[in-house]
Amino acid sequence: MARILCVGIATLDQVFAVEAMPQRAEKYRAHDLAVTTGGTAANAAVAIARLGGKVGFFGALGEDRPGDEIIAGLEREGVDCAGVRRIAGRKSPLSAILVDRAGERVVISYSDPELPGSTAALPRSLPADVGAVLGDTRWQAGSAHFFRLARETGVPAVLDGDRAPREHPEVLELATHVAFSAQGLRDLTGSDDCRAGLESLSRSAAWFAVTTGAGGVFFRDGDIVAHEPAFTVEAVDTLGAGDTWHGAFALALAEGRGERAAIRFASAAAALKCTRFGGRDGAPSRAEVDVFLAAGARPA
Amino acid sequence: MARILCVGIATLDQVFAVEAMPQRAEKYRAHDLAVTTGGTAANAAVAIARLGGKVGFFGALGEDRPGDEIIAGLEREGVDCAGVRRIAGRKSPLSAILVDRAGERVVISYSDPELPGSTAALPRSLPADVGAVLGDTRWQAGSAHFFRLARETGVPAVLDGDRAPREHPEVLELATHVAFSAQGLRDLTGSDDCRAGLESLSRSAAWFAVTTGAGGVFFRDGDIVAHEPAFTVEAVDTLGAGDTWHGAFALALAEGRGERAAIRFASAAAALKCTRFGGRDGAPSRAEVDVFLAAGARPA
Repeated sequence: MARILCVGIATLDQVFAVEAMPQRAEKYRAHDLAVTTGGTAANAAVAIARLGGKVGFFGALGEDRPGDEIIAGLEREGVDCAGVRRIAGRKSPLSAILVDRAGERVVISYSDPELPGSTAALPRSLPADVGAVLGDTRWQAGSAHFFRLARETGVPAVLDGDRAPREHPEVLELATHVAFSAQGLRDLTGSDDCRAGLESLSRSAAWFAVTTGAGGVFFRDGDIVAHEPAFTVEAVDTLGAGDTWHGAFALALAEGRGERAAIRFASAAAALKCTRFGGRDGAPSRAEVDVFLAAGARPA
Repeated sequence: MARILCVGIATLDQVFAVEAMPQRAEKYRAHDLAVTTGGTAANAAVAIARLGGKVGFFGALGEDRPGDEIIAGLEREGVDCAGVRRIAGRKSPLSAILVDRAGERVVISYSDPELPGSTAALPRSLPADVGAVLGDTRWQAGSAHFFRLARETGVPAVLDGDRAPREHPEVLELATHVAFSAQGLRDLTGSDDCRAGLESLSRSAAWFAVTTGAGGVFFRDGDIVAHEPAFTVEAVDTLGAGDTWHGAFALALAEGRGERAAIRFASAAAALKCTRFGGRDGAPSRAEVDVFLAAGARPA
């Protein structure tokens, strides 16, 4: 079985369920709370593990209590954390997340500016059993490092483009596949229109897509922009849905599927995640995705 | 020296410093983070301790890690936590707080519906050295219990009216002094106008006021509504300012000051708190308040 390496940020998330998003500088009461690990790359790693993939996480954390909780949470899910560096005197990343009745979420996160830092301790070549690398924009130097190794061995290098990679823009060229969020594509191109944003990207080697939640996935197929609709579900909590999508997409590529089939698999996994509260705690198992697709779930 | 009892909620607060309040269901990065104890009554207790008062906190917490952190944080500040009940299987309250560049804050909090629960373990009479009781609306049964004891011994019973006390509305009658937030007064009276809201309250035994931040304090003085302006400061973080105000106000009453002098003292303490980031971590010492007032600080 191929192994996936996920490179980037891991956080401790406090997920508050609220009636509606705050509109005034006042006090709001949450009706539910989940404390879980989070972070784009770490959530994708958990999604991959639940979908039956072998997965290792590379990133850096402080030598603090939240850091201990993050690693314990990832290891409970079967994510190999041998690649996590602990750095004394730094704060592990924390996020507060609000999820409203419509399942929409606001994420507020704090990352120590000194983390994750240096790539000096990272491996200099990719182990033979690695079938894909997934990197996020929170550790662009780390993603760039692993994307170079992936290019050398010819395995997919997937970038989760949840924002423009301004510190290391070369990750856009090093990646074989870039899947933006709508926010990330807008951040990079200045365009609020997903099709126009994709069309404005230079014709580089990478395959480009943008995930838009219930609006489905737009992707560049040669010179045209194609669209794959999302599955219709009752969304309870979209937190971690994008991360689940990226993890499932990288796993499907590592298993040898084509991009369109990988989109379909990833969109099913993300749709199932949205039906459950608690961020990445709601990521589905492989069996659940198989049942969902076998039951005749159809894109909207 | 008189002792103050603070009755109500204690939380673990994660305070995120953000550029501006979230407007979309997207991701936002904080540029600073403080993890500290919070909660209306507990913050007031810390403010009293810093102002040189003797203070005990009564409330309930889970037997969990956040509960341990909350008690350690209060005891470090000199707050007596012998009155805190720990309840197995319950979650201690957590809050996420966003503070923007203008110093405005949004508080999102989760409290276990089973906490703080029963008043059965509370003392049946007030110790002789207690000079005032301060209660919040998060544990209305506890506040009502201590307000009754305060009435028996004739010491001030101050309610922090940050929302309408719907479960135990009798606290409004049992309190000798009720100081609302603008949100609490609106919640109770339906009026967005502070003067009109105060005027609409029934002429019960309690003394009523509403604190409005930079807008100063409105209070019922006989049949008229009087106003005491706030001190002008460069606000960095208003989180915990109301709690600081209530703690300082109760302390001043316990020291035998009249209401108008107590408002002035409390407003100076709250103004100084607003000049520092980190929620109640920014509450001032007695010496700082004395210097601020002696330096000729004048209400706006």
